[in-house]
This record gives sequence, C-alpha cells and structure tokens, in this order.
Amino acid sequence: MYFVCYFLLYKNMKSIQEISTLVHNGIREIDFPDQPSGLYEPLQYVLGLGGKRLRPLLCLSACNLFNEEALAQALPLALGIELFHNFTLIHDDLMDRSLVRRNKATVHIKWNENTAVLSGDALQIMACQQIALAPADKLKDCLDLFNQTASEVCEGQQLDMNFEMLDNVSKEDYIEMIRLKTAVLLGCSLKLGAIAGGAPARAADLLYDFGIHLGIAFQIQDDLLDVYGDPDIFGKAIGGDIINNKKTFLWIHSMETADDHTRSLFLNCMKSSYMDREEKIKMVTSFYNRLGARESCEQQMLDHQQSALKALNKLGLDKEQLITLSELARKLTYRQV
Amino acid sequence: MYFVCYFLLYKNMKSIQEISTLVHNGIREIDFPDQPSGLYEPLQYVLGLGGKRLRPLLCLSACNLFNEEALAQALPLALGIELFHNFTLIHDDLMDRSLVRRNKATVHIKWNENTAVLSGDALQIMACQQIALAPADKLKDCLDLFNQTASEVCEGQQLDMNFEMLDNVSKEDYIEMIRLKTAVLLGCSLKLGAIAGGAPARAADLLYDFGIHLGIAFQIQDDLLDVYGDPDIFGKAIGGDIINNKKTFLWIHSMETADDHTRSLFLNCMKSSYMDREEKIKMVTSFYNRLGARESCEQQMLDHQQSALKALNKLGLDKEQLITLSELARKLTYRQV
Repeated sequence: MYFVCYFLLYKNMKSIQEISTLVHNGIREIDFPDQPSGLYEPLQYVLGLGGKRLRPLLCLSACNLFNEEALAQALPLALGIELFHNFTLIHDDLMDRSLVRRNKATVHIKWNENTAVLSGDALQIMACQQIALAPADKLKDCLDLFNQTASEVCEGQQLDMNFEMLDNVSKEDYIEMIRLKTAVLLGCSLKLGAIAGGAPARAADLLYDFGIHLGIAFQIQDDLLDVYGDPDIFGKAIGGDIINNKKTFLWIHSMETADDHTRSLFLNCMKSSYMDREEKIKMVTSFYNRLGARESCEQQMLDHQQSALKALNKLGLDKEQLITLSELARKLTYRQV
Repeated sequence: MYFVCYFLLYKNMKSIQEISTLVHNGIREIDFPDQPSGLYEPLQYVLGLGGKRLRPLLCLSACNLFNEEALAQALPLALGIELFHNFTLIHDDLMDRSLVRRNKATVHIKWNENTAVLSGDALQIMACQQIALAPADKLKDCLDLFNQTASEVCEGQQLDMNFEMLDNVSKEDYIEMIRLKTAVLLGCSLKLGAIAGGAPARAADLLYDFGIHLGIAFQIQDDLLDVYGDPDIFGKAIGGDIINNKKTFLWIHSMETADDHTRSLFLNCMKSSYMDREEKIKMVTSFYNRLGARESCEQQMLDHQQSALKALNKLGLDKEQLITLSELARKLTYRQV
C-alpha cells in the first residue's frame, strides 16, 4: 500500500525535463508585437540569446512540488520573471557599459543607448503583463511580491554602483548588495511558483529562503568564475571584475586580510593606470592567491549552499520530491558557466 | 422637489478644489524610502518640480462623477498614473538629451545618465505598486488597462524617435504617434477613475474617448506653444522643436502645403547647420506663418477639443456634473503653459 501511494505521488510530479520543455516552449511562444520594430526587435534578440532560464525553472519546480496541475497557471509567472530578468540585463549592461553578453553584442552596442533605455522599459511592462495573468485569487499576493522584489533589484544595482566609488566595503555590505541585486529574484521565482501551486505560507517562505541562499552562493561563485573560470566555457572574458574595479567577495577578503603594506600595494595595483589589462589581472590574482581569497570565497559559497539545502529540508517533503531543486542548488554553485 | 434632488446630487460630488487638494496631499504623502539615497532622491526631486497634476485630476474627477465615496480607492490609481508619467519624463528627457524641465535641470544633468536610467526604473515600479492597491474586484481590469497603456506610451516614444529620421511623415502618422505617446495616458487616467467609481462599461469607454481627443488637442496645443508661446509663461525655451527638427503638426502641414520650391527652401532651412539658433527659429516660423500652419494647427486642435466634449456629452449626465471635466478640456486646450 505504501509503495502504491509513493508511486502515485511521483507520478503526480513532472520531471525536470518536462519542466524545462514547458519553460522553453513558453519563452518561444511569447508574442512580441511586430511594430514598432525598433522597439520590439531588440527584445526578441535578447530573449533569443538563451541563458540558463534558471528563474522560470525554479518557479515551475516550486509549483510542481505542490500541484503539478497548476503548472499552466504558474507559467506566466515564470515567464514574467524571465522577462524582468532580461530587462535588468539590458539596463545593467547599459549602465556598466558592457560590450558583450553571452558572446554577443549588448543592446546598446548593437543598436544604441536610447534603444536600450526604451526597449528595456517596454520589456519591464511585458513582464508586468505576464504577472497580471496570475490566478485571480492569488493575483494580489503575486503582484505585491513581484513589485517588492523588482524595487529591491533596483536598490541592489544602485548599491553595486555606489560600491565602485568606495574603498571600504564590508563583507556584510557586500552580501546585502548581492542579496538585493541577485538573490531576491531567485527567492521570488520560487515563492511565486509555490503560491501558484497552493503551497502553505510557511512552505512558500522556506522556498523563498532557499532562493536567497542559493542566489548568494550563485553570485559568489560568479565572482570566483570571473577570476578562476575557464574563459572558453565561461562565455565572457576572465578578469572583467578586476578591470572594472568591482568590489567582489575576493576583493573585500583581500582588503580585510592584508597587512597595511600589502593593502597599499594591492590598492595601488587595483588603481594603476600604467599596467596593461593582462598584467593587472595577473597581479591582482596573485594578491588574491597569496591572501587566501579563493578559499575564503569558496567557504562562503559553501556556507550559503548548505543554508539553502537546510531551508529545503525543512519543507518536510521526501528527498525524491526535492531532487530537482537540490540538484539545481548543487549544479549552480559548482558550475563553470 | 426637483430642486431638492438636484441639490443632493451635487452635494454628493466633491468640488474641483477638493479633488485638487486630495491629489496634492496624496502626492506629498508618497512614501519614498530613504536608502539608497542615490536611487530615491532624484525621484523626490522630480515629483517636487510640480506640474499641472493633470492626470490624477482627471482620474479623480472621473471617479467623482459616479461615486465620490470611492475617491479614496481611486487615489492610488491617480498617484500610480502620476508616478508613471514622471517616470516617462525622466527617461524621455534622457533620450531627447533635454537639459531643462520646468525651469530646472533634468535628472541626467543634475545627477548622471545612469541615475536617470535606474531611478526611472524604480519609479515605474513604484507606479505599479500604486496600481496594485486597486480594489480587489477591480484589480485585474485596472492592471490590464494600465499595462496596455504603458506599452502604448513606449510605442509612441519609439515612433517619435523614428520620425526624427524621416523627411516624410503624414498627418495621420503624426496623430497616431501623439495618440500613443500622450493621449492614451489621459484616457487611461479617466477610465481608471471611472472603473474605481463603479461606472457602467459604456460610460468608462466614453471617458476614455474624451481623454484620447483631449490628449491629442493638448499635444497639438503644445506644438503651437513651442513656437507661438510666451517664453516667460511657457517655462521652456521657445523653438525647441524647430531646433531639434521635431516633426510637429506645424512642420507636417508646411511640408504638405508648400510648393516644390518652397518645400525645398523649407527643408534646407530646417537642416541648415550654418544658421544660429535664433535665426533658424525666425526663418522656420516665417515659413509656418506664410503657409498657414498656425491656423491649420488651431483648427485641428479645436476639432479634437469638440470631439472630446461630444464624448463627454454622450454620458447623459447634467452639464453641472460635467463642469469640472468640460472646463478642464477648455483650459487645457487654450492654455499658455
């Protein structure tokens, strides 16, 4: 009897492959208006660049835990989050003056700055239109969570820009910045999926916490990959954060750990204008290596990965049910891309 | 007996002064977070520049026609529209490289371009948060109308930018552009107010039409003021559209009306780089005068003003009830500011 129930339970969940197909078909079927083409073509371009589609996968996986029949209702929420994420990429790339995204020219480079501003705005509105498709009885909750998250993402980007002007950023400030800039959108994706699936409030909150820790671990891994990744796999040039004087976890650890003499050498090296690109990356990396920045960063990443898995386990579901999310958490934090 | 009912009826409507007070207090009480100050200070600055607050006035006036007790519920919608309008001003000023708005420096000038992008984004989200405060049973209708309108406003801005590159824009193309860029937001303001007030669907649609024609008349009047306004009253420099080669109604009329020789002189003058600013404005204005552009523009403005009033009269309400909206329509189209 137990075996039968067990079997039925997992029969009532979609596999990760099925979830992934739902996401990819959903994105492919998003209906961009034809005109004005100057507004909508850049959006098709950006969505067509691909990416991990992590956020919609998290959203549908969370819904799948509670009610696989609600996946169709969760899909617009998943798509809304992916559109919003792509909107932030367009505007962030413009603000950061990034030339390349996923091995292709960014929107303000391929078109121009005005196009990046206005097409980005249109994409944010399209995201809201998807969120507005939430089931009527859950619409208000979904909207409030989405809007709150969207505000926080802007606040995170502002803090990130502020940090570029500062020589003194603490680990706590940094974690708060990446929580806002990256992690809350992962938490929001999961919680929206849980809400659509009819999860109890506590379960939805635990999934949100899972997303927060996952997002922080994910971002710290991103910092590591920027310095220690394989450029052929990573899809962008190594050392971009060093060249742009980004205050990453590696940087903050080094500033906090170094003695006064080393710190002053390190700062001179970061601010140097006479070194060429490769030389600067090599020098800063050797500081990182000497000061144990990589190990500290990996430990911090692992701590958040563990906190994420703990939140997941508190859901009180079977391991087999959680396998999609726990595997995602592991893959995302030990990734090379 | 008739007199008593009449009296009670108007007792149940707020005066325009009371509506105006509601709007101004509502805007003053909008709660901007303190931090990060780099994100939110520019928003307080923009909202503090004042302006006619036309859109929230229209929204509450529409609600007032049907149920003055619903004004408190309509207020967040009115504020959401005003926040959205201010978001478009920040991003449009950035895209148009405008230096001054309401006699003060624009956001990208007072701060920088990144601030204009990101603070604008945050303001759009704050607008959505206000719209999400709509009464639960009207939330979906309000959201759909707002999001649709927001998309159209972006499309209008895109068309406006496209027109700068074209030598051939028809009056129909131009009216469609200003319908999207300006008029739909006025229509949306009125219709949101009507929905909040529990208006029948037909009445809400008539108020939307009123707003569309009012918006078109308003924009044509704006084109007129840019050339024929009093700079001390208008709040911005006269001739800005001429200097920026904007395809206004005056321009299109002149291009359509001139003979080949005059058209070629007119185009040379518009594109000339050797004339100084004042000389160019004077020359183009004299073309406009010679070709009857002002009169044609005024006629077009009056036609839309009349269409607006016709839509209003179809509501089947007493003239006294409609006085706020009909007076607004007259003031806005014969305005000097």
